[in-house]
Amino acid sequence: MTNHEFYMRLALDNALAMKGQTDPNPLVGAVIVNENRIVGIGAHLKAGEPHAEIHAIRMAGEKTKGATIYVTLEPCSHQGRTGPCAVSIVEAGIKKVVIATLDPNPVVSGNGVNILKDAGIEVIIGVCEEESKRMNEVFNKFIVEKKPFVTLKAGSTLDGKIASHTGSSKWITSEAARYDVHQLRSQNMGILVGINTVIEDNPELTARIPNGRNPIRLVLDSSLRIPLDTKVIQDNQAETWIFTTEQHDKEKRKQLEEKGIQVYVTSDTNRADPNKVLHILGEKLVSSVLIEGGGSIHAAFLEHHLIDKVVIYMAPKLIGGKLAPTFLEGQGIQEMSDAIELSDVTVEKIGKDFKWIGYPIY
Amino acid sequence: MTNHEFYMRLALDNALAMKGQTDPNPLVGAVIVNENRIVGIGAHLKAGEPHAEIHAIRMAGEKTKGATIYVTLEPCSHQGRTGPCAVSIVEAGIKKVVIATLDPNPVVSGNGVNILKDAGIEVIIGVCEEESKRMNEVFNKFIVEKKPFVTLKAGSTLDGKIASHTGSSKWITSEAARYDVHQLRSQNMGILVGINTVIEDNPELTARIPNGRNPIRLVLDSSLRIPLDTKVIQDNQAETWIFTTEQHDKEKRKQLEEKGIQVYVTSDTNRADPNKVLHILGEKLVSSVLIEGGGSIHAAFLEHHLIDKVVIYMAPKLIGGKLAPTFLEGQGIQEMSDAIELSDVTVEKIGKDFKWIGYPIY
Repeated sequence: MTNHEFYMRLALDNALAMKGQTDPNPLVGAVIVNENRIVGIGAHLKAGEPHAEIHAIRMAGEKTKGATIYVTLEPCSHQGRTGPCAVSIVEAGIKKVVIATLDPNPVVSGNGVNILKDAGIEVIIGVCEEESKRMNEVFNKFIVEKKPFVTLKAGSTLDGKIASHTGSSKWITSEAARYDVHQLRSQNMGILVGINTVIEDNPELTARIPNGRNPIRLVLDSSLRIPLDTKVIQDNQAETWIFTTEQHDKEKRKQLEEKGIQVYVTSDTNRADPNKVLHILGEKLVSSVLIEGGGSIHAAFLEHHLIDKVVIYMAPKLIGGKLAPTFLEGQGIQEMSDAIELSDVTVEKIGKDFKWIGYPIY
Repeated sequence: MTNHEFYMRLALDNALAMKGQTDPNPLVGAVIVNENRIVGIGAHLKAGEPHAEIHAIRMAGEKTKGATIYVTLEPCSHQGRTGPCAVSIVEAGIKKVVIATLDPNPVVSGNGVNILKDAGIEVIIGVCEEESKRMNEVFNKFIVEKKPFVTLKAGSTLDGKIASHTGSSKWITSEAARYDVHQLRSQNMGILVGINTVIEDNPELTARIPNGRNPIRLVLDSSLRIPLDTKVIQDNQAETWIFTTEQHDKEKRKQLEEKGIQVYVTSDTNRADPNKVLHILGEKLVSSVLIEGGGSIHAAFLEHHLIDKVVIYMAPKLIGGKLAPTFLEGQGIQEMSDAIELSDVTVEKIGKDFKWIGYPIY
């Protein structure tokens, strides 16, 4: 690990520690180094409060003169509560700026670097770039596309099944993995399932961990078959939004809306349109969605290339069954050579189970 | 790691290095330690040659007096080329014997230890026991049950598929994983597939690596549908044995036998009987079988609790398809709580893919 990486990792670690408390702002960390000593550290703590660089500059005081600052995201060029960070860096007398990644917003990307370079400051870009981008993957997509970052989540057996051929599915994974799922739910603004999952499992779709933040429950239900006595309609633990088609039952819609359920029409065919669903969610500022299936919902979103990330909790057990469902159904791909590969794959053991993370390459 | 474990691991490493060259004998390693110095190391190199302890004793010479010997398997009590090892240990003046695991053969298990104890030698049993048992898993089963150790092998996508819904399956895994499969084939005495695999893929079922040992090709074919022009009938690269039922085509059998193919009748129903297949293989001294499916063959053996080990090469890619086959079909288990769990699960990255190893718990 180079010195640059060492200091940038400290900045990344500090940024990551604030996960969940900076929304809608990204996670950012900063470290200031002068004559091989760390003289300031900072992180963005909360929207409306100073950026990471400002905290670090304040901590360093006079020691910013001639120093190097490491910052996980390009310093901003806009007038916020504490002025453009790029200008503050210039005024602090910092001589070198090491940046993990440029601002993802194409409207302002590069502007901060230009201010620094115009002031004669040396700028290095790209140290720990991938880590920084992953850390803000939700923010980075939403700021550019105005559509939510979509994570497919499933719990499966080693042979790919999410239930037995009779529909039995409790429990595939161990308690530790299920706890992790609740954390994942808490980190997403919305959780999306198909109507069959609601009818078969009557799930709460909440984040049942200490200080868990319940996501908005999103149900794809083309004809409004959802029973009025299900938990997502009755329990008031979180909002529930339903995405339907023109072919829905108008009387049922009234009943749902009287209960405070929002109903959106996304298609004039007999299936909700995944693209339209994400478009509506983006307009409502829902920046992240966790899709918890079943297999045909997953396939519909994957076929439209709308899955950004895949998280599979795989239990080391076998269930078998030609008719047992897998977590990815639909028609599927014809040629193995057209399979959708995942990049940056990691496998981590959680309790007895194995958690896969990967990013589809379309 | 204790001193005992340190020395026993060295003995295990030396034993493992001889993998494939000791058949039909087990892998065994030995280390002799005197006053905290290693004074002898040994391993069983080849059937008919000295056991591991004898090599180590010869290397240690006079330094066996008062020494400790670490041996991965209980010293033998029978008269071989170099006499019972337990007696040689006594005669060498060794004062302590540390053993990983007792002899798996119930007829002689404990006899070696008794000889040692009767001579006043201190005996410690069970250091690195699991590692030693795994190392000789094939030998240990065969010596007791006279039936082959059965490994299920499959290459699958992350969503459990072994082919697309159209049957496309080339290639699921990367070259590195396929090379590993050929090593696995080379380590097994037999490779077993269903007739559908032969008809659809026309595979060679050989170990295509340097110095690879081709396993016997074993085909389950209830009515002898196997085409005479397939590679396993024509190429003479390895023996081919076919397991059929009473309902087979008698004329076809004659044609096959004329080509040197062995045909065994295992059942009077319309499906070959997995138990009978393994019984016949045991009688023919086939001590290890690799089953390479497809999914209904795997399910048939798993349902009969005949799979000892599971090896899955999982590619981080998605294919989808409600009708795409998985590596475990059949009817499958009804209740998730009855799923067959795997013990001692490991996941190792091979090239782009992930190799799972586990042992079904019945």
